[in-house]
Amino acid sequence: MKIKYNLLHKDKNCGARLGTIETNYGVVDTPMFMPVGTRGSIKGVSPEEVKKCGSGFVLANTYHLWLRPGEDIVAYCGGLHKFMHYDGPILTDSGGFQVFSLAKDKEKDITEDGVHFKSHIDGTKLLLTPEKSIEIQNKLDSDIAMSFDECPPYPVTYEYMKKSVERTLRWAKRGKNVHSNPNQSLFGIVQGGEFQDLREWSCKETVKLDFDGYSIGGTSVGEDKKTMYKMIDDGVRYLPEDKPRYLMGVGDPIDILEGVERGIDMFDCVLPTRIARHGQAFTRTGKINLNNAQYKKDLRPIDEECDCYACQNYSRAYIRHLISVQEMLGGRLISIHNIRFLIRLTEEIRNAIKEDRFLNYKASFIKKYTINKK
Amino acid sequence: MKIKYNLLHKDKNCGARLGTIETNYGVVDTPMFMPVGTRGSIKGVSPEEVKKCGSGFVLANTYHLWLRPGEDIVAYCGGLHKFMHYDGPILTDSGGFQVFSLAKDKEKDITEDGVHFKSHIDGTKLLLTPEKSIEIQNKLDSDIAMSFDECPPYPVTYEYMKKSVERTLRWAKRGKNVHSNPNQSLFGIVQGGEFQDLREWSCKETVKLDFDGYSIGGTSVGEDKKTMYKMIDDGVRYLPEDKPRYLMGVGDPIDILEGVERGIDMFDCVLPTRIARHGQAFTRTGKINLNNAQYKKDLRPIDEECDCYACQNYSRAYIRHLISVQEMLGGRLISIHNIRFLIRLTEEIRNAIKEDRFLNYKASFIKKYTINKK
Repeated sequence: MKIKYNLLHKDKNCGARLGTIETNYGVVDTPMFMPVGTRGSIKGVSPEEVKKCGSGFVLANTYHLWLRPGEDIVAYCGGLHKFMHYDGPILTDSGGFQVFSLAKDKEKDITEDGVHFKSHIDGTKLLLTPEKSIEIQNKLDSDIAMSFDECPPYPVTYEYMKKSVERTLRWAKRGKNVHSNPNQSLFGIVQGGEFQDLREWSCKETVKLDFDGYSIGGTSVGEDKKTMYKMIDDGVRYLPEDKPRYLMGVGDPIDILEGVERGIDMFDCVLPTRIARHGQAFTRTGKINLNNAQYKKDLRPIDEECDCYACQNYSRAYIRHLISVQEMLGGRLISIHNIRFLIRLTEEIRNAIKEDRFLNYKASFIKKYTINKK
Repeated sequence: MKIKYNLLHKDKNCGARLGTIETNYGVVDTPMFMPVGTRGSIKGVSPEEVKKCGSGFVLANTYHLWLRPGEDIVAYCGGLHKFMHYDGPILTDSGGFQVFSLAKDKEKDITEDGVHFKSHIDGTKLLLTPEKSIEIQNKLDSDIAMSFDECPPYPVTYEYMKKSVERTLRWAKRGKNVHSNPNQSLFGIVQGGEFQDLREWSCKETVKLDFDGYSIGGTSVGEDKKTMYKMIDDGVRYLPEDKPRYLMGVGDPIDILEGVERGIDMFDCVLPTRIARHGQAFTRTGKINLNNAQYKKDLRPIDEECDCYACQNYSRAYIRHLISVQEMLGGRLISIHNIRFLIRLTEEIRNAIKEDRFLNYKASFIKKYTINKK
């Protein structure tokens, strides 16, 4: 089945929305944070561990799975859920972001047809088109597929962005035309950079194509925070209330709060697992770096307020030891904690929206989270 | 408390023994395989996952924990069990094997006092003595500590080995004299290389010192299998029946069977986790290498007869994918499987001994395990 979004409540004091999404793999709550399993595995963490963190959707990268092991092997193995043993809904991106970011500029050619580029693994010449992206995602059998869009760098001229938005709209149509998996929903992506009128236009035209949900694209590409929040405002304004809204690639706790305030329902980011592998952990009073010698004899858990497996069973001293001798368990424990931290943040956000106190919650979270920065 | 070994049954047709060891952390069955947590973590696997594999004792390396994080930090954190969150008995080695194998020959000086060597991490000059080894292990608070012995290379002359055995006996006495942890048992180590009379002598003299258990040292150092099995025979012959016998560093399934036949109760090895990280997995019909392209579309579990978490939930195709894209979960899944494989082997061994059919079991296991080698 296609997903179904239910708007349960809007906070009376801002744009924050409480909702649910009905999926092939159960009903999930929004606002939600989606951990990222780039190559069909959330780095260092088992599917059961992710579930225990309270995950709903997880994300997998079409580009990476297309290259290895290939969408046909995933399909042969029964689709992505069975392949990676995740008993919950999965969202796949379009592959566009990786093509635009991993391929070197000189080896990349953006045409109306799609993007010609060289594989970052072995240099093979490849072409990713809107149709191909959807075809791959159809085979991966994720619950939500994303339209293939152009991801322009930041900043670009108004003229470039206008042409890019036009092309992204044509690509969105082409992708929608070939989409053929009845159990998969398809999201459109709003682009337009920091230009308000282009965002508005991109938004209205994308909505006309009637997707199952909408994503705000082109953020977190180098712009400052104020610009990013304005992009969200401009992108969300003309989106329908009865469809979920997804802010791609955003996982900083404060950015999640800013996004929720503006009406975003879904977030994803590699941040919690990536920083974990380098020893960095979220706490209520900001990020800490467990490589630091100060944690050598610290018997406390990473975060005393946390209910995750790592915080219930291990000291900072032990995790610091694991990180410093490069034991795999170290990155795994911090990954579990960081994922749980962001998912718990969304749980608290949902409780706050229900009681129309989101703005208070946001303010008190940020006050504590930034306490050591003052 | 000290450990207590109970001999429950001896197979009527060979030296195989069924027993239990009472420990501070419950009663465990022998023969037993002990997974190795070199730096206080079984590589890639959580303590709960090891327990689910059926583990009794796990092993940790004194040398590595001495260098990082240091035994005082482990003691400050409440000892090794609490530090690494393992709710079962732990055995620590003496550090001798690492000192002898990791330090370069030119940077190593064996004196009557102990071994002067340089840290493999930063070149710091260090001295490990029998007393120091026991003192570190006392602080680590493992359930079984090992005596500090000389591990001569293979082969050495009879004269060298004789002097080495004499020194190892003096070191064993010195270590025993300073051992002071009432909750920790202490094992002696039988040396003597391939020389039958030296093994006999080492064995008898070590037993006179009255340890809580005995280990056969100096195997798996380059000798052929026939010599190794003879070393076990020569080492075990004069050991008391009421104490456990431990064959250090042995984890090949066939070697475990050969050891059990000769009366060994305990085995440890990094093999199951080390080969796992390179994609190699045990199966009933021998080892397989999951890097091989033949597993790309193999929907079967690693081993169809296995009851482990990896085999219950994942295909060879998926694990092969994880290994080929270097996702951590790959090594973790194979590690879980390989540990379970060896522990399950010991479970079957115990059932066979109980019914006096160990030799039949051994023959049929080996026949199947080597079927592809013919």
